[in-house]
Amino acid sequence: MSTTDRQLRVGMVGYAFMGAAHSQAWRTVNRVFDLPARARMSLICGRDAGKVADAADRLGWDAYTTDWRDLIARDDIDVVDVCTPGDSHAEIALAALAAGKHVLCEKPLANTVSEARAMAAAAVTAQAAGVRSMCGFNYRRVPAVAMMRQFVADGRLGVIRHVRATYLQDWIVDPQFPLVWRLQRDKAGSGALGDIGAHIIDLTQYVTGRRITGVSAVTETFVKERPLPAGSSGLAATVDGAAVDGNGADGHRPATGAVTVDDAAVFVARLDGGVLATYEASRFATGRKNALRVEINGSLGTVAFDLERLNELEFYDATRPAGEQGFSRILVTEGEHPYMSAWWPPGHLIGYEHSFTHQARDFVEAVATGVDPAPSFVDGLQVQLVLDAVTRSAELGSSWTEVEPALATVAA
Amino acid sequence: MSTTDRQLRVGMVGYAFMGAAHSQAWRTVNRVFDLPARARMSLICGRDAGKVADAADRLGWDAYTTDWRDLIARDDIDVVDVCTPGDSHAEIALAALAAGKHVLCEKPLANTVSEARAMAAAAVTAQAAGVRSMCGFNYRRVPAVAMMRQFVADGRLGVIRHVRATYLQDWIVDPQFPLVWRLQRDKAGSGALGDIGAHIIDLTQYVTGRRITGVSAVTETFVKERPLPAGSSGLAATVDGAAVDGNGADGHRPATGAVTVDDAAVFVARLDGGVLATYEASRFATGRKNALRVEINGSLGTVAFDLERLNELEFYDATRPAGEQGFSRILVTEGEHPYMSAWWPPGHLIGYEHSFTHQARDFVEAVATGVDPAPSFVDGLQVQLVLDAVTRSAELGSSWTEVEPALATVAA
Amino acid sequence: MSTTDRQLRVGMVGYAFMGAAHSQAWRTVNRVFDLPARARMSLICGRDAGKVADAADRLGWDAYTTDWRDLIARDDIDVVDVCTPGDSHAEIALAALAAGKHVLCEKPLANTVSEARAMAAAAVTAQAAGVRSMCGFNYRRVPAVAMMRQFVADGRLGVIRHVRATYLQDWIVDPQFPLVWRLQRDKAGSGALGDIGAHIIDLTQYVTGRRITGVSAVTETFVKERPLPAGSSGLAATVDGAAVDGNGADGHRPATGAVTVDDAAVFVARLDGGVLATYEASRFATGRKNALRVEINGSLGTVAFDLERLNELEFYDATRPAGEQGFSRILVTEGEHPYMSAWWPPGHLIGYEHSFTHQARDFVEAVATGVDPAPSFVDGLQVQLVLDAVTRSAELGSSWTEVEPALATVAA
Amino acid sequence: MSTTDRQLRVGMVGYAFMGAAHSQAWRTVNRVFDLPARARMSLICGRDAGKVADAADRLGWDAYTTDWRDLIARDDIDVVDVCTPGDSHAEIALAALAAGKHVLCEKPLANTVSEARAMAAAAVTAQAAGVRSMCGFNYRRVPAVAMMRQFVADGRLGVIRHVRATYLQDWIVDPQFPLVWRLQRDKAGSGALGDIGAHIIDLTQYVTGRRITGVSAVTETFVKERPLPAGSSGLAATVDGAAVDGNGADGHRPATGAVTVDDAAVFVARLDGGVLATYEASRFATGRKNALRVEINGSLGTVAFDLERLNELEFYDATRPAGEQGFSRILVTEGEHPYMSAWWPPGHLIGYEHSFTHQARDFVEAVATGVDPAPSFVDGLQVQLVLDAVTRSAELGSSWTEVEPALATVAA
Repeated sequence: MSTTDRQLRVGMVGYAFMGAAHSQAWRTVNRVFDLPARARMSLICGRDAGKVADAADRLGWDAYTTDWRDLIARDDIDVVDVCTPGDSHAEIALAALAAGKHVLCEKPLANTVSEARAMAAAAVTAQAAGVRSMCGFNYRRVPAVAMMRQFVADGRLGVIRHVRATYLQDWIVDPQFPLVWRLQRDKAGSGALGDIGAHIIDLTQYVTGRRITGVSAVTETFVKERPLPAGSSGLAATVDGAAVDGNGADGHRPATGAVTVDDAAVFVARLDGGVLATYEASRFATGRKNALRVEINGSLGTVAFDLERLNELEFYDATRPAGEQGFSRILVTEGEHPYMSAWWPPGHLIGYEHSFTHQARDFVEAVATGVDPAPSFVDGLQVQLVLDAVTRSAELGSSWTEVEPALATVAA
Repeated sequence: MSTTDRQLRVGMVGYAFMGAAHSQAWRTVNRVFDLPARARMSLICGRDAGKVADAADRLGWDAYTTDWRDLIARDDIDVVDVCTPGDSHAEIALAALAAGKHVLCEKPLANTVSEARAMAAAAVTAQAAGVRSMCGFNYRRVPAVAMMRQFVADGRLGVIRHVRATYLQDWIVDPQFPLVWRLQRDKAGSGALGDIGAHIIDLTQYVTGRRITGVSAVTETFVKERPLPAGSSGLAATVDGAAVDGNGADGHRPATGAVTVDDAAVFVARLDGGVLATYEASRFATGRKNALRVEINGSLGTVAFDLERLNELEFYDATRPAGEQGFSRILVTEGEHPYMSAWWPPGHLIGYEHSFTHQARDFVEAVATGVDPAPSFVDGLQVQLVLDAVTRSAELGSSWTEVEPALATVAA
Repeated sequence: MSTTDRQLRVGMVGYAFMGAAHSQAWRTVNRVFDLPARARMSLICGRDAGKVADAADRLGWDAYTTDWRDLIARDDIDVVDVCTPGDSHAEIALAALAAGKHVLCEKPLANTVSEARAMAAAAVTAQAAGVRSMCGFNYRRVPAVAMMRQFVADGRLGVIRHVRATYLQDWIVDPQFPLVWRLQRDKAGSGALGDIGAHIIDLTQYVTGRRITGVSAVTETFVKERPLPAGSSGLAATVDGAAVDGNGADGHRPATGAVTVDDAAVFVARLDGGVLATYEASRFATGRKNALRVEINGSLGTVAFDLERLNELEFYDATRPAGEQGFSRILVTEGEHPYMSAWWPPGHLIGYEHSFTHQARDFVEAVATGVDPAPSFVDGLQVQLVLDAVTRSAELGSSWTEVEPALATVAA
Repeated sequence: MSTTDRQLRVGMVGYAFMGAAHSQAWRTVNRVFDLPARARMSLICGRDAGKVADAADRLGWDAYTTDWRDLIARDDIDVVDVCTPGDSHAEIALAALAAGKHVLCEKPLANTVSEARAMAAAAVTAQAAGVRSMCGFNYRRVPAVAMMRQFVADGRLGVIRHVRATYLQDWIVDPQFPLVWRLQRDKAGSGALGDIGAHIIDLTQYVTGRRITGVSAVTETFVKERPLPAGSSGLAATVDGAAVDGNGADGHRPATGAVTVDDAAVFVARLDGGVLATYEASRFATGRKNALRVEINGSLGTVAFDLERLNELEFYDATRPAGEQGFSRILVTEGEHPYMSAWWPPGHLIGYEHSFTHQARDFVEAVATGVDPAPSFVDGLQVQLVLDAVTRSAELGSSWTEVEPALATVAA
């Protein structure tokens, strides 16, 4: 069998927002990148037979199943791609690793530290047997983010002094927006913190190559009670029988439930090496749709990134001649930029979904060439430890709360 | 056969830059949009058997052929997608229409007015038999551009006064960049003018709903002689045996040839209804990679667009209260925006290639529902008439040169 | 004596950076604004006779003195303008108020809470006798900032949820930058915190109309030892006998001293009414020269401001039709905007110094018409209480530290 | 008499918008810059005794007169500053030069080429007698513009290929805006063309060091009839007895008059050395308040400037490493930047009026040190020749119209 005939047969669990994004990636990755193996969209899994059949047809999967255990049991599946809500990550991923499947698991790795620790331990064990695992922090694969990492690694920023990171959205500013699963602790683990805060925690640790060692946090749930949802799709949802003013068609108020996660989380932090940092994750920042913004100041330069302009990177090089220094807006669309030689000519933009295609590329390459991809489950656990420290600090009057190194906790 | 089983079998001619972009669109369109028919990537055509076989495999086409006449002759092809250089558009498209195939033809429609007129006439004739045709001005399908059109159509800008449009690139600033086909008049028809100027001509006529009635132009070829190319890919190319300093490895200068197209074209224009306009297309605007920028000023408001930030639209509404007026940066990523409900949540960006997916969507929808898509070949001819007027004006000392309405010239 | 002949005779103490800025304001204010009294630049005071004589001549003061007590003792001075470092604010301002002079005192009001409290108490007492006092938080007078306040006051933002404020500079990133007075606790009280953090504390409390009720903070001194300075001017300084590499011309290292203030301070905070906030002040943010940035998110809208683009205000109005919402860049240069009708036509920018001219305008107007200007010394004390809470929180492991209402502490 | 006691006694003619701007400059220049002579605001001249007396008092001039001939006749005036409408520039400036006064004359130099030529000839003659003259193209003194000039002069842009320049305003979009003097050919010479177009003509010739050699133009008057004005101030005006709907309080329509100047002028041009250019000046660009924007592309780099963000300069350096290139936003507020060491610390913005202060500085320095300032009256004539060519081209169907070198026409 020639190299180009080699396939990685993917089974994906979940078909909502993340399932659609991953499908677009699996569908595209072989068409754009030259890889040592081709991903095949073999099997999709969801609990509702009708819906998953529709999803398989629409998204282009060869077959479907309603039981993820069945998916894992099949010997014609090489990769398990976990796209479910966080409460089922651990069970599925542990079973998949035990079955010798390579695993790509969406972020956050789990809903609790103990789950994440078990997953990290299992991943370390599986690794010895050549089974690969990866946590889906897709924003690492935005070319501008990869460039930031490279600038830091090359010493272009000098000694890093500051990190400031926000991830701001506004999709639940309306108090009548319903109580979807992302607003329930048992399903989602936490709110803005785990959903979007996790991204900036991972991204800043990745880019700086440094670990958050302690935090002082405040969290808030601005709207504590919300109507129960009738249905949802992606991040959108509708309220059962309820008009926009919060009253049902018949004048009765819809049933409501308690919001059990944070709407916003803010914290100050230290990273090792003397870095001072601020973080904010919120779903109540009116007008900010997907404003993941990161700025890193070093003694020799600064980089700044905004996901709402993901094709751009701002770079300030303090070693340039005085009087000529300024923030350069680098349009990250050249062949020299990470991942970009496979796409379009200079100046032709890519979008959100490309981060997943790049993630698929890196995952396929790692699996096919027998190396461990990053971020590992241990990296995912590291993020989980920060999320946990933030929650505990917020519960204890913002008191300083230290964060252990993940690897130590797995070893122990 | 159910509606969802209905297929449009596409045969695509050409597999370079545009072929890759169209392939990505055909591959994606059914997966994202609910359409009355599904596009099937049936057949790809190119002259070099090895290369087209590779392209078919890589891009995901069912089969390939080396003869476009064969492609047109097949009765299992419904749509002919013409992605070749402009010198072959007329011959292929005319044959396809004559064979009763629906045709999607890349822009500019042709290299000459007479070719374009013949194509438009054939399209009008074919139309009567239910055969559809469309010219591939893909930027009409950028959501922000579609919004601009809507703002104008809804009267939000009032009486239109000014259009200013530039399309700036810098890919041939280096005089050692080789003499690729895009720099040869017999292949490309013109240079920056037809390649990128055509886009802003079509886009501004589309958005304003008005026609360019006259122009006064200057064109320039800054670098008149270039080395012959060894190979090219997309917009990149290499010089045969030549080092960067323009001398070959053996010290001999590489063979050179004359650049027979414009490097840049600038013109002032009038559109009907009293609109004053400026246009500029250049491949010598250092640092501008894909800077298609359009601003339209009306008595009640202004819209401004920049393709390097294609997810954004700037809108100034002069009917807002004094003191609150300003340019609103609308992030065109909401479900309310054209095409966007099919994609990701608010704030999640799309890229260049999505304009082709949207084009494929509109084409499939039009063909499947039996309506004529836009821009028609007559619209393509209208652009060609402007290109021709610009060329003639430049040749005649910038003298004012009127532009006929395309439809009249087809009728005549 | 006619109204227009009425004068307010100003005596200014200090003639460095702030003295120059205030002089420009006093010189300009009568020429641009129609006021019930004219400011007269009567007397300038500094300790060094030669330098203050030069300053009087250069800046345009009628006379000079070397003793601030003399300035206060004179009965031909109506207003005392305190532009000295913070360690002398209390003594001078208290004496001036006791002498019945109206006082404009630069920020921060003092170096300690106890000094500030004494000043606030004295101001309240003096107020009863018609003696006016004001703390110089000049950025309140930037037109865009005044507009933000108006938007909040008019309810345009709805319920306020978030404040995020940074004031970032980079002027001491170089570890060889000398130990100027601003880096010494006994002179400056604190570092970035009091110098620039004070501005964002006051500004956000002013704009939101809400008070910071508690903080959790971290501060850092990145460079703990610096060479002693030879001289300084504004924010620039030189090192005595020292080359850039930190060695003197004769090869000896220059004498150094300990930096006794913070280089950076970060904190999370709550404001009354349920507002969650983050603050950061730093002198180590490479590339950020004067980046006072404030964003306020409410349930109905958001405002955002950047002092490096002080003529602009970003406003997101979530009550606009869906699909048209966006951040409006309001160019705050119209006659409708605060202070601007006195200046130039629309689109003609103002600069940093204008905030001082506006401050002078408001101060003169208040004094001449017999009303109390804002911010009062009590407002200045309120800021001081926050600075103090930040310092204490940072010393106590970021523990949550409450901030009292200033008025209560003055009354008590 | 010591150097510092040396005075230049200024007599200014005119006290409207330009008079106020110049007054602010004369008042400030000695206070900020160290100069070999001090400007003294000796005498202001206007035709209406009451108004000019008020202006003298408000703006801070020592005395006033109602007759400019009297001003020129006085032997205690060294400098005549001409701030009147263009129709009186020639008469006043010629008389002043004949009287041996140094002359600063607002732009455009005159309303006609013949007037401008006479002024240029007189200036060349006066020059031999040590009498200095300067045309007030103040934007040359914006620090970012001076930097652009320096970049070009230093060869940083390489071979210049493109200039694109717009000056866009919107102050007469409303058809009920009255017929002020700026809309009358006999007073203003031309409309947008001479008022704001003149600025971009001078600025681009200055920055590139190249001369416009030919143009092809279109001009337009969108609103051909306007109500007669009751009064005006700066660029604002009111209509006599007319409500906003264009009817007077008594229901009668106000008297109207013909607009005799252009509302907008667009032209393509060539500059010597093979540069291709586009220019646009308009008062109908809704939302653009003072949008003087210039971009210059060279083979090695690009500079871009926007007067609405006058403290910033965008610079693209194509000699930087591939992958790191981008437009640098240089905040032109450092001591290294032209004029800026005299002002505030880095990051502290200056405004529109500072360009006049810098102009005053350069004028005083030139006069005091006995050198000829730039732009000279010959430079002013050069601009006038371009304005004239644009007008003639527009009248002759946009035909290509060459522009003579000014110096040749003066010599002849």
